[in-house]
Amino acid sequence: RINGDRLWDSLMEMAKIGPGLRGGNNRQTLTDEDGEGRRLFQSWCEKAGMTMGVDTMGNMFFTREGTDPDALPVYVGSHLDTQPTGGKYDGVLGVLGGLELIRTLNDLNIKTKHPIVVVNWTNEEGTRFAPAMLASGVFAGIHDEQWAYVREDAKGKKFGDELERIGWKGDEKVGARKIHALFELHIEQGPILEAEGKDIGVVTHGQGLWWLQITLTGKESHTGSTPMPMRKNAGLGMARITELVHAVAMAHQPNAVGAIGHVDVYPNSRNVIPGKVVFTVDIRSPDLSTLSAMKAEIEAKAPKIAKELGLGIEIEEAGHFDPVIFDEGCVTAVRNAADRLGYSHRDIVSGAGHDACWINRVAPTAMVMCPCVDGLSHNEDEEISKEWAAAGTDVLLHAVLETAEI
Amino acid sequence: RINGDRLWDSLMEMAKIGPGLRGGNNRQTLTDEDGEGRRLFQSWCEKAGMTMGVDTMGNMFFTREGTDPDALPVYVGSHLDTQPTGGKYDGVLGVLGGLELIRTLNDLNIKTKHPIVVVNWTNEEGTRFAPAMLASGVFAGIHDEQWAYVREDAKGKKFGDELERIGWKGDEKVGARKIHALFELHIEQGPILEAEGKDIGVVTHGQGLWWLQITLTGKESHTGSTPMPMRKNAGLGMARITELVHAVAMAHQPNAVGAIGHVDVYPNSRNVIPGKVVFTVDIRSPDLSTLSAMKAEIEAKAPKIAKELGLGIEIEEAGHFDPVIFDEGCVTAVRNAADRLGYSHRDIVSGAGHDACWINRVAPTAMVMCPCVDGLSHNEDEEISKEWAAAGTDVLLHAVLETAEI
Ligand SMILES: NC(=O)NCCC(=O)O
Ligand SMILES: NC(=O)NCCC(=O)O
Repeated sequence: RINGDRLWDSLMEMAKIGPGLRGGNNRQTLTDEDGEGRRLFQSWCEKAGMTMGVDTMGNMFFTREGTDPDALPVYVGSHLDTQPTGGKYDGVLGVLGGLELIRTLNDLNIKTKHPIVVVNWTNEEGTRFAPAMLASGVFAGIHDEQWAYVREDAKGKKFGDELERIGWKGDEKVGARKIHALFELHIEQGPILEAEGKDIGVVTHGQGLWWLQITLTGKESHTGSTPMPMRKNAGLGMARITELVHAVAMAHQPNAVGAIGHVDVYPNSRNVIPGKVVFTVDIRSPDLSTLSAMKAEIEAKAPKIAKELGLGIEIEEAGHFDPVIFDEGCVTAVRNAADRLGYSHRDIVSGAGHDACWINRVAPTAMVMCPCVDGLSHNEDEEISKEWAAAGTDVLLHAVLETAEI
Repeated sequence: RINGDRLWDSLMEMAKIGPGLRGGNNRQTLTDEDGEGRRLFQSWCEKAGMTMGVDTMGNMFFTREGTDPDALPVYVGSHLDTQPTGGKYDGVLGVLGGLELIRTLNDLNIKTKHPIVVVNWTNEEGTRFAPAMLASGVFAGIHDEQWAYVREDAKGKKFGDELERIGWKGDEKVGARKIHALFELHIEQGPILEAEGKDIGVVTHGQGLWWLQITLTGKESHTGSTPMPMRKNAGLGMARITELVHAVAMAHQPNAVGAIGHVDVYPNSRNVIPGKVVFTVDIRSPDLSTLSAMKAEIEAKAPKIAKELGLGIEIEEAGHFDPVIFDEGCVTAVRNAADRLGYSHRDIVSGAGHDACWINRVAPTAMVMCPCVDGLSHNEDEEISKEWAAAGTDVLLHAVLETAEI
């Protein structure tokens, strides 16, 4: 069993870096705070006897050697970056749970055949630089590295430049590492486990996603003196597409979700009819045909809405992953671990995307979930209990031990 | 007749300060650019022999003495501040038309009985600091000066601090000046004069306005893992209220307009359901009962929309003026001037708010309008012809001469 108090102390210590305004965190990717969080994590890992490798996407890998020099490493980890108004556990639990697992093996002087690597993936959240899970996506060969480097934030700063600026561009070639298996511990970010009183979610599948960035172009003009029939109101178009996305998701219940989280209105002046609105549609489903049908409906109807209002429309893909089926062997290792430890559990579909979803393309992968209060995440009020964190990390430890072999 | 070329040259010279990205202007109130524009205007006025007074709201007054020491001044002018993506003429024409009028009187060595004062009112646009026409509103006793000083921009900077910062807080008590009459020349900002081929709009009335700043509060949560029935999506509420405002305006055609120009979404992340949206509704009508009915309908229905979605709602007044009836004597002076000069003209209702609307509460006031291309304003592409500008300024000159008496 891992040390739940020590894990909790580390979580609270990390949360001091990039504090939010209401008790959560704002430690967005490639900010100074991200750099500081990485340094703290590095110091802890080195104190635990691990050695660091950093690749050219800033992914951090800490290795605890195994007894068999030919055995590929078992990976554990997640991400240390947060939403602008994010919680203290989303991602961080998976990284520091990995570290706690190593500390526990050190305490008990347990050696494994396979090395164990604890990883922190760069830019999982995708808020500052779309898409989400950018660096694990490059690692898995989904995205091109040069393309990733020129992703821009809202101020036009580039991913590659910011990575260099904070001093975390390593020299390892991305994706060169071979992985025996990967396990990611993460909070559920949804309400199911808590509602059913389960300690552990055994993640068998992940929802697929599309992010569609839509630009509507109307005509900036005076809100007072422009007659209604002469208006080209891009804000009205955005409103109608918001309603469309909601209706499309509601038509596929309970197998779909849809919302618009990001909206920029130009010039954003009280007495100017919006001449341009840029916003991102987020639609998801665990079922590929549902997801495709939703996307097709939005792509068919949004241009009609635009046309009726005299607006130009451009739809760009800003992120996409298909629904995921995790590796049966790894999933079984997680389920067995929960059983062995006597934790209640259920199979679950991840509502969110995770780095594990991309790594699943190149190596056997599974995820462990623990509950979070009210299913709330991407919110500063995100909360979990010390016991939930410890149970998840215990299961992670045992799944890893079964896979890395003692 | 005024000198149309000289007027045009001055307009183009002023437009060099705070240039926009597409040929227009971004010279928002109390920015460094506003300060620079004021200094240029000051230098021109002093060269034309006028003396400056500046009040504690930053309103600038340049006086050309009259022959009767007891006669109250006739005022002309408008504003030099612009929208963030504004045109070169909105406001500026009225200020520099006033200067051109003085230059013409100097050229012709014409003395008037009443002094003539050219004025630049601070913060007409209301984009950076709501409400619009803030300083003329304080001058007219509508707003309290201390209240005006604590209006905040999007970054939390206060009007009073920014006025001091750019060095344009004068020492004259606001509203202490007595006004014999005031004339404001302005571009129409709507399509009527151009469509009907009229040179001049004789402004008899102005539309009334309400700005309602609405804050919807939902619950920030994950766009992927939060089930649809658990969501409190403030962005969806904003979309429905956008549609409501449009419907309310359409129900009162052709006597009403309505739109939402300003929208801030929090935390504005692609994978976070908006937890808060702040936006400003702009509704207008020339008819007070229509305007009141529109406001009442929005105030009744918006909370229902919020309630259905589980959102909190707060509605604050961010600006308001009743429909305006300009002074009959001043309006007649404008109409007579247009007739005398042989310009085609029609009576017109101003769709926008103007400083003249507030001054009309404390002194006899009227406005002269000239056409603008496609009725387009609050847009960098705002355009007028040199001839239109000259015709408007000619009418201004003659209305002022009739009122200031030779
Ligand atoms: N786990 C998580 O919040 N990932 C961010 C990517 C997503 O939006 O699903
Ligand atoms: N003329 C003008 O654009 N004034 C700004 C105030 C308003 O929105 O009407």
